[in-house]
Amino acid sequence: MAAEMAEQPERLARLVERWDGATAQVRALAWPQVNGSVIVARGSSDHAGAYGRYLLELVSGRPVALAAPSLHTLYAAKVDYSGFLAIAVSQSGRTPEILTTLQHMQAAGAAGLAITNDGGSPLARAAQATLSLDVGDERAVPATKTVTATMAAFAIVAAALGTAPFTREQAAELPRWVAAVLDDPEPAEVLAAQLADATRLICVGRGLMYSAALEAALKLKETTRIPAEGFSAADLRHGPIAVIEPGFPVLALHAEGPARADMRDLVDDLRGRGAEVAVVADEEGAALPLPAGVPEALAPIVAVVRAQQLALALARRRGLDPDAPEGLSKVTIT
Amino acid sequence: MAAEMAEQPERLARLVERWDGATAQVRALAWPQVNGSVIVARGSSDHAGAYGRYLLELVSGRPVALAAPSLHTLYAAKVDYSGFLAIAVSQSGRTPEILTTLQHMQAAGAAGLAITNDGGSPLARAAQATLSLDVGDERAVPATKTVTATMAAFAIVAAALGTAPFTREQAAELPRWVAAVLDDPEPAEVLAAQLADATRLICVGRGLMYSAALEAALKLKETTRIPAEGFSAADLRHGPIAVIEPGFPVLALHAEGPARADMRDLVDDLRGRGAEVAVVADEEGAALPLPAGVPEALAPIVAVVRAQQLALALARRRGLDPDAPEGLSKVTIT
Repeated sequence: MAAEMAEQPERLARLVERWDGATAQVRALAWPQVNGSVIVARGSSDHAGAYGRYLLELVSGRPVALAAPSLHTLYAAKVDYSGFLAIAVSQSGRTPEILTTLQHMQAAGAAGLAITNDGGSPLARAAQATLSLDVGDERAVPATKTVTATMAAFAIVAAALGTAPFTREQAAELPRWVAAVLDDPEPAEVLAAQLADATRLICVGRGLMYSAALEAALKLKETTRIPAEGFSAADLRHGPIAVIEPGFPVLALHAEGPARADMRDLVDDLRGRGAEVAVVADEEGAALPLPAGVPEALAPIVAVVRAQQLALALARRRGLDPDAPEGLSKVTIT
Repeated sequence: MAAEMAEQPERLARLVERWDGATAQVRALAWPQVNGSVIVARGSSDHAGAYGRYLLELVSGRPVALAAPSLHTLYAAKVDYSGFLAIAVSQSGRTPEILTTLQHMQAAGAAGLAITNDGGSPLARAAQATLSLDVGDERAVPATKTVTATMAAFAIVAAALGTAPFTREQAAELPRWVAAVLDDPEPAEVLAAQLADATRLICVGRGLMYSAALEAALKLKETTRIPAEGFSAADLRHGPIAVIEPGFPVLALHAEGPARADMRDLVDDLRGRGAEVAVVADEEGAALPLPAGVPEALAPIVAVVRAQQLALALARRRGLDPDAPEGLSKVTIT
C-alpha cells in the first residue's frame, strides 16, 4: 500500500500528459450534448463516482445519476438509455456486475465509456470508448493509486463535457500537490497516535468534498477495522448527529468554495457537542493540512491521499497488515 | 412513536383510497414519457427515495437519479432539467434545502412534484403538483407513519408512470399486512433482548429491499444510539464485510424476487464468518417474519414497520426515550 501510494505523483503526471487526447475521445463519444449521465461503480470506485457525480452535473448542466446495478444484473429492467452517457468504472475491468450493467445500458441506447486500469479487460473491450488509467498493477487490497487516477479521469471527462471549474494549468499541478502531501507524513502519524484506540469514526464533507469523506471512511474501515462511516454535512445533521458524544472522533474535510462556510459551522457544532474533530483542509490548525492553492474541484483528490496516509499509519499502529486486510479480496463477484 | 406506528394501517388505507385521483394527477404532470426522474430528499425521506429510485426506473424504463441538493443550494449550478420529472420529498414541506432545490429544478425546466405531509406547506405551494400524505402530525422525532406513507406515495407515482410490479388489489392489501406486523410485537421483543448490548449493527438488503435496510439502520441509530449502518449486499461484499467478526449483529432483509438468491448466499457467508444474522423476510426461521403473499415491490414498506418495532423495543430496553432522541430536531436547516 505504501509503495503504491508513493507512485501516485508519477502516475497522475502520466495521466495528465494524455489530457488532450483523452478529452477529444470523450467529446467524440458524448457529443452532441447528452440528456444526462449515469455512473456505474462499486466500492472505492463508487466514491470516485460520487466525485464525478458532482463534477459532471456542474459542468454538463444535465442530471447525473449513480446507477443501481441490480436493476440491470438481477431485475433485467426494460430500459431506454438513449441520450445518456454511461460511465462504468472498474479498476480491474473484470467486476462482472459492472460489465453486465454497462452492456445492458449500451444495448438500451447509452453512449458507453469505461474507466479502467486495464485497457485490454472485458470492460474496456465492451465499452464504446475507454479511458485507461495505466497506473500499473495494484497489489495491496486497499485501492490507492487507482482511486486517485479514477478521480483524475473524471476531471478529464468533466473538461471534455464543458467548462471545468479548474484550469488546465491547475490540473498539471495535481501531481506536485499530491507529492507535497506524501512528502509530509508527520501530521498523519500524529493524528494516528490520537486515534489509536478509536472504536468508531465519522468522516464528513459537503459538495465536491463529500466524495473524499466517503473514500476516507472506506479506506480507514478497510485497513484499521474501525467502523468508520462517511456522511455529507447535510445528512449528518439530519439525524445521525445524535450518535455524537463527547470524545467521538470526526474527520471533517473542506476546501475553498461554496461548501466551506457550512462545513465550518458544522465543525463548530460538533465541537460544541464534545466531538474530537480533526480537520482536513488548507487552513491554519488543520490536523491534516492540504497544500495552498488547490482549487475545490481538485481538492478531493489531494484529500484522499491524506486519508490514505492516515489509514496506513493507523493500521500499522494497531498492528494490522494494511496490504491484505482479513476478509477482503480484490475482485468481487456480485 | 408507538402511537404513530399504530396509526399506520388506517393512514395507509386512506392513502390507498385516493389511488385513482393521485395517479391521474401524476400522469397529467409527467406525460408524455419523461427523459428521466430526479428524487430530492434527506434523511428518512432519502430512504423512501431509494425505494422510489428502484421502483420508478423499473416502471418508467428511464434513468432515475437521487439529487445532490448542494449543487442547487450552494453551488447555484447552471442546469437544464427539461424533460425530467423532479420529485421533492419533505414530510414538513419546510426543509429549506429541499424547497430551494425543487424551485431551482423547476426553473430549469423540470416538471415538479412534491410529496409532503402538509398540503399547505411552502414546498406544496412551490411544486407544480402535490401528493399530500395527510397522515396527521408526527410528533415523535423518529419518522414512522410519514416514511411508510411516502413509500406508498412512490408506489402511486410508479403506478402512474407505467405498469407497476404489483396489482391494484395488492396495494389495497397493504394496510392489512402492516396491521398484521403491528399485531405481532413478540418477535421484535425477542430480537431486542438479543441485541440489548450491541455496540454496532449492520443492516443489509438488495434491489428494492435495499431502501428498507437503509431505513432500518437509520431508525435503529436514531432511537438506540447504536452506530448502525445500512448496505446493499453488493456494496457490503465489496469491502466493508471485512469488519464482520464472530458475534457481529446483522439484520438481513429480503423478499420473494430476483434479489432473494443473492441475499440468501450473503446470509450464509455472514454466518460462516460468525455473524449473528437476524433475517427479516417471509420465510421459515425469520427473526422478524413478514406476512406471506406480499409482493417484493411492496415488501419494503412492511419490512420498515418491522424495523420500527425493533427500534422501539430496543430503545425501551436500553432505557432511552424513543420519542425525543438527544441531539435531534424535526426540521433540519442545511
